[in-house]
Amino acid sequence: MTMDVTFLGTGSAYPSLHRGASALVLRSEGDCWLFDCGEGTQTQLMKSHIRAGRISKVFISHLHGDHLFGLPGLLCTISLNLTSDPQPGVKCVDVFGPRGLRHFLRVTLGLTGSQLLFPYAVHELEPTQDQSPEEGQLSLEMTTERGPPLPQEHPGRNISLDVSSDAYLLFEDDKFVVKAFRLFHRVPSFGFCVHERDRPGRLKTERLQQLGLKPGPLYGRLKAGHRVQLENGRVILPDEVVEENIPGRKVCILGDCSSVPGGGLAICQGADLLVHEATLGEAHRDKAVEHGHSTPRMAATLARACGARRLVLYHFSQRYKPEKLRGDGDDDVSELRLQAEEVLRDADVEVILAEDFLTIDIPLRRTKSST
Amino acid sequence: MTMDVTFLGTGSAYPSLHRGASALVLRSEGDCWLFDCGEGTQTQLMKSHIRAGRISKVFISHLHGDHLFGLPGLLCTISLNLTSDPQPGVKCVDVFGPRGLRHFLRVTLGLTGSQLLFPYAVHELEPTQDQSPEEGQLSLEMTTERGPPLPQEHPGRNISLDVSSDAYLLFEDDKFVVKAFRLFHRVPSFGFCVHERDRPGRLKTERLQQLGLKPGPLYGRLKAGHRVQLENGRVILPDEVVEENIPGRKVCILGDCSSVPGGGLAICQGADLLVHEATLGEAHRDKAVEHGHSTPRMAATLARACGARRLVLYHFSQRYKPEKLRGDGDDDVSELRLQAEEVLRDADVEVILAEDFLTIDIPLRRTKSST
Ligand SMILES: [Zn+2]
Ligand SMILES: [Zn+2]
Ligand SMILES: [Zn+2]
Ligand SMILES: [Zn+2]
Repeated sequence: MTMDVTFLGTGSAYPSLHRGASALVLRSEGDCWLFDCGEGTQTQLMKSHIRAGRISKVFISHLHGDHLFGLPGLLCTISLNLTSDPQPGVKCVDVFGPRGLRHFLRVTLGLTGSQLLFPYAVHELEPTQDQSPEEGQLSLEMTTERGPPLPQEHPGRNISLDVSSDAYLLFEDDKFVVKAFRLFHRVPSFGFCVHERDRPGRLKTERLQQLGLKPGPLYGRLKAGHRVQLENGRVILPDEVVEENIPGRKVCILGDCSSVPGGGLAICQGADLLVHEATLGEAHRDKAVEHGHSTPRMAATLARACGARRLVLYHFSQRYKPEKLRGDGDDDVSELRLQAEEVLRDADVEVILAEDFLTIDIPLRRTKSST
Repeated sequence: MTMDVTFLGTGSAYPSLHRGASALVLRSEGDCWLFDCGEGTQTQLMKSHIRAGRISKVFISHLHGDHLFGLPGLLCTISLNLTSDPQPGVKCVDVFGPRGLRHFLRVTLGLTGSQLLFPYAVHELEPTQDQSPEEGQLSLEMTTERGPPLPQEHPGRNISLDVSSDAYLLFEDDKFVVKAFRLFHRVPSFGFCVHERDRPGRLKTERLQQLGLKPGPLYGRLKAGHRVQLENGRVILPDEVVEENIPGRKVCILGDCSSVPGGGLAICQGADLLVHEATLGEAHRDKAVEHGHSTPRMAATLARACGARRLVLYHFSQRYKPEKLRGDGDDDVSELRLQAEEVLRDADVEVILAEDFLTIDIPLRRTKSST
């Protein structure tokens, strides 16, 4: 039931020696999902405690190079490691991102003769016109893949905005519902919302024994929310013998943006963790917005509006060195935390500055019965 | 007149924490040329003493990812640095490499909306069919660029094999003649030969003064190789007053290969520095050849055949850690040097193992008069 986020790169624009380009990994039990993959992500992974071969899904927020240029190489290296350490039943790696991503991978992997030992599929999000200035929109001509798919390329879905929810439903299974939502940036950019499903609470075993119920199939029925009738005619309601539901956690990871048009605010409501860019401090707000980026205050304003519990800032301009490496005259990254905290003064929201290799644990929420 | 080579990455297949992916820089006075550009080359450059913004030409030996995936990001970062440090009259960056490279850059830079602040041109080498197994050849369909060129993309040349010299003439100017030649690898691969032009020797000023010749235009004519007649009728031959020509240096940098078909041997004749891959040691020779790679003996055999003065081995399997980082049970990279030296026992050829950030000076050859 553990869930955590590890930052592999927290710098904007390009990878530097003190901040890698954008990439982070969300882990939940066996699952390992990568969000963005700037150049050098594979070497950042080697420096971390996460094994590249565990990554089963990749989410690309937008097609800027500092979020994407590491992806072809990462896929190749995962594949090379499979050669030396063959795993039975390699699953398909699902890649989600804006329209054009399938073409990008087909050309980069195809021209380099990169034959992956596992299948992959690219599921493309169709941007809408209000996500970027007109000059940031790519024509169908540029983004449509051509020629036959690569041997290891499985068909991917083309996902359009669901107008009623103002979101893109990427997938849902028995553990998660994962959606994307639109952001405004120089090019179409997306945020991702990973929402864990609620789980039934624990059985109150003492109470069940008082009622004379022995462990067996009826326990399962009660836990699944069904009423049960005993041989003596007594009806037991789930509420009597099952603790409160354990609410699923919600993690929202936003790509580059200067604002969140449409449904993002509603989707991020109550996020346990909101990961938001803060490229430049308030002194450079105009420049930030002009380049489609945010300041800490802008990020904090969103966190406040959606009632997030924790706000993580990342994607810092390379001018902000990590606190440990800061020299005389360098910009102070801790200023960015203060700027966010000012907006959140009366709200119970923790602000965290991401650094490369920082891991943030996302605990289960306390329910009444567990306190 | 200094000339040197700096290795930025010496590992094969992928960048690791102890060996970057393939990349090296040849410097000669103001010129700074990059050979191959694996993922992470831009961060390797940051760790080195070489400024990325000085690179004016890029040579890509073949389209494998470990030689190419760093190029789009490097170009973007060079451009970003220009914003903060604008240079008047930015020159066109020339990129040389196999057919398909223009398409690769147009798609990777185009889809990511990367607007370079300098022009670039891709000059493509047309491979021949005997450079790779059939399955390593890319169809015209896959390699032909489509759509309009990017705004910053200048037209590049398509360079075919010159059959009489069995080489590709990339360019020549008053300082250099640069050629490419074919290699055999899993995909079409090339070697590059940078040949400095001979320079006239120094004027013997004492002798000139004995002859009564004062500094002036006649000095230049003599140095340029012309005979000169004095007022007294005496004819002075350049040989009398000019020292022997200073021979131009020759640096040959080979991409991945298991053999050198065609004209490579002749072109590399007398190389001052021969940079050759040695992916695996002799114990793994079959595996090396099967994957289109060389062992130290294979590299040394070529160095011997072409009378090279120094042989540099690089592109080592990541199993060979640098000597300093070698732990118990690790393969010993210095074995590779011994294997090459065995072949060169009676030949006067120095063998060097490349490591990341190693710089090798290439001195002018001593002429009779300078000894
Ligand atoms: Zn970015
Ligand atoms: Zn961006
Ligand atoms: Zn290679
Ligand atoms: Zn290769």
